[in-house]
Amino acid sequence: MPNTPNPTDTCPIPLRHDDVIVTAHGGGGRMTRRLIEEVFAKAFDNPLLRQLHDGATFSVGDGKLAMTTDSYVVQPLFFPGGDIGSLAIYGTVNDLAMCGARPLYLTTGFILEEGLPIETLKRVVASMQRCAEEAGVQIVSGDTKVVERGRGDGLYINTAGIGVVEHNLEIGAKSIKPGDVILLSGDVGRHGIAVLGARGELALEMPVESDCAALWKPVEALLESGIEIHCLRDLTRGGLATALIELATDSGLEFSITESAIPVQDVVRGACELLGFDPIYLANEGRFIAIVPEADAEKGLRELRRFTKDCEPALIGSTNSAEHGRVWLKTVVGMERPLDLLSGEQLPRIC
Amino acid sequence: MPNTPNPTDTCPIPLRHDDVIVTAHGGGGRMTRRLIEEVFAKAFDNPLLRQLHDGATFSVGDGKLAMTTDSYVVQPLFFPGGDIGSLAIYGTVNDLAMCGARPLYLTTGFILEEGLPIETLKRVVASMQRCAEEAGVQIVSGDTKVVERGRGDGLYINTAGIGVVEHNLEIGAKSIKPGDVILLSGDVGRHGIAVLGARGELALEMPVESDCAALWKPVEALLESGIEIHCLRDLTRGGLATALIELATDSGLEFSITESAIPVQDVVRGACELLGFDPIYLANEGRFIAIVPEADAEKGLRELRRFTKDCEPALIGSTNSAEHGRVWLKTVVGMERPLDLLSGEQLPRIC
Repeated sequence: MPNTPNPTDTCPIPLRHDDVIVTAHGGGGRMTRRLIEEVFAKAFDNPLLRQLHDGATFSVGDGKLAMTTDSYVVQPLFFPGGDIGSLAIYGTVNDLAMCGARPLYLTTGFILEEGLPIETLKRVVASMQRCAEEAGVQIVSGDTKVVERGRGDGLYINTAGIGVVEHNLEIGAKSIKPGDVILLSGDVGRHGIAVLGARGELALEMPVESDCAALWKPVEALLESGIEIHCLRDLTRGGLATALIELATDSGLEFSITESAIPVQDVVRGACELLGFDPIYLANEGRFIAIVPEADAEKGLRELRRFTKDCEPALIGSTNSAEHGRVWLKTVVGMERPLDLLSGEQLPRIC
Repeated sequence: MPNTPNPTDTCPIPLRHDDVIVTAHGGGGRMTRRLIEEVFAKAFDNPLLRQLHDGATFSVGDGKLAMTTDSYVVQPLFFPGGDIGSLAIYGTVNDLAMCGARPLYLTTGFILEEGLPIETLKRVVASMQRCAEEAGVQIVSGDTKVVERGRGDGLYINTAGIGVVEHNLEIGAKSIKPGDVILLSGDVGRHGIAVLGARGELALEMPVESDCAALWKPVEALLESGIEIHCLRDLTRGGLATALIELATDSGLEFSITESAIPVQDVVRGACELLGFDPIYLANEGRFIAIVPEADAEKGLRELRRFTKDCEPALIGSTNSAEHGRVWLKTVVGMERPLDLLSGEQLPRIC
């Protein structure tokens, strides 16, 4: 393949056998992708894992199912708009939704640190149950482990989930076609700033609320409206930019994105300017992109609007055939620049 | 309900709202059960969770599935006969097998501590893949999080799994009937002693090998032989004794167990005598009990023998109707004593 480098092939820090884990391996950027490709994908290689989507889809009997998992290590445990429990439910529900699957059942595994107040655990568990009810899923099995003081951080949660696929679409990067449009479900960057604010590392005039939300209902609406969805991706670690770069890489297409079309709340933009962050790399927990045929753009936006209260869904770009998958951002000053995976870590432990 | 106390109702340390998590909450004994009942089962209550089995079974389309999860925090990561990776695969495969489900797909979530050598991670991942292949399952989706130094312990793994139920038996505590027999698949206590030995806390003449193994094949053989399996339970945290007490409690039956019938390796028995442990409370990772009609006892033992190399499956007891579920152990000296859940913790972090 010719000279334009694939973003993941330019990792400045190769994964050598004498390397150790650093926090950037968990940041969702280049080092995370490299770790996944070099260690996990290589060893566990199979066709389902190779889908490299938010979850795996497969058939069991006459049904098509999706299955996914995520661990949650957010610090602090509680923040404006959510907590580790709501993340643990919504995060896994959303990964299923991104497979176009109706979330059905979750499992949950707790790793508790000695000394955690049981009252704290009860608050988190109550939040999980509220969110599970709202998202229409049941927690059907669980596990609890305890580690000594100083071997954890209060509590870590893993959730895994299965959902059922009730349509015949192939939703994934490989289904994206040149000429598709990219719809964004709402404003970006709030979750990252909300967690940072809750850590007290940021003197915000008003607390920013996380966008933390379940995404199955808007996805269901898109499916029921008959739109030919090509791809869905929620914008968690690494934010909108990372999701776009990964999908461009995996589809082999060029994405053209218009920066001015991306909704960002003023308070988030202000915090980003202060801290030198780019809001499109900040984590979200209730936002996604839908990549659909251009003809379905208006219908898609209309459906997405039904599920937003305080922000506007937007058409932010389109896809074109190209020699290599990559993302071009038309900036607010009219320049075009390629987006790249973060090589380090912007904000650790935001989910 | 009259006077014989239910073992779980005699917890000396009630779960007060100002309590904190202690290591015994993860030990698999009385405090674990109390935590699950008071915090998790109460909040997440639903019919599937109420099965309180190793996994949940439910229908999707025309199929019947089982789903389960476990987190693994064993220390050290490597021990004779296994490692955290083999535990993470076998543990979840075995929970599915105990539902009578053929294991199909696993997800895996890693929580890595900053500073973990990638070489260590690769060894664990390679072990997971070997065990997955041996057990006939595929790892289809995963997640990686990184926590700062001093907020973890090398690595923690969560696996969740789904399997398919291909028979019409109702396998669970509620299906146990008076007059059933209890078959034990092999010798007990090895995993607990193996991990303790690997910690260097024990001067063993010969290292004890963990019994760590996948249990689907012997379960499949029992199913294919046409035996009417009433209940299956693997003997992990809390060992054989805890599994028996929980099943007696949940079935409302009395179990009579003959201590001399329980296979224990000499080296395990020796270590237990030295340390004051009872082998029937020690963790195993490749042993289970099958509770079946008396008429199927011989056939069951014959099938189980096909899967043991260095130990003998055994008929260790039977079930009787009673006012309350409990377990009586006929000791080697001929006395009968009731078994009780451990109130503290015997060995922390053995899985």
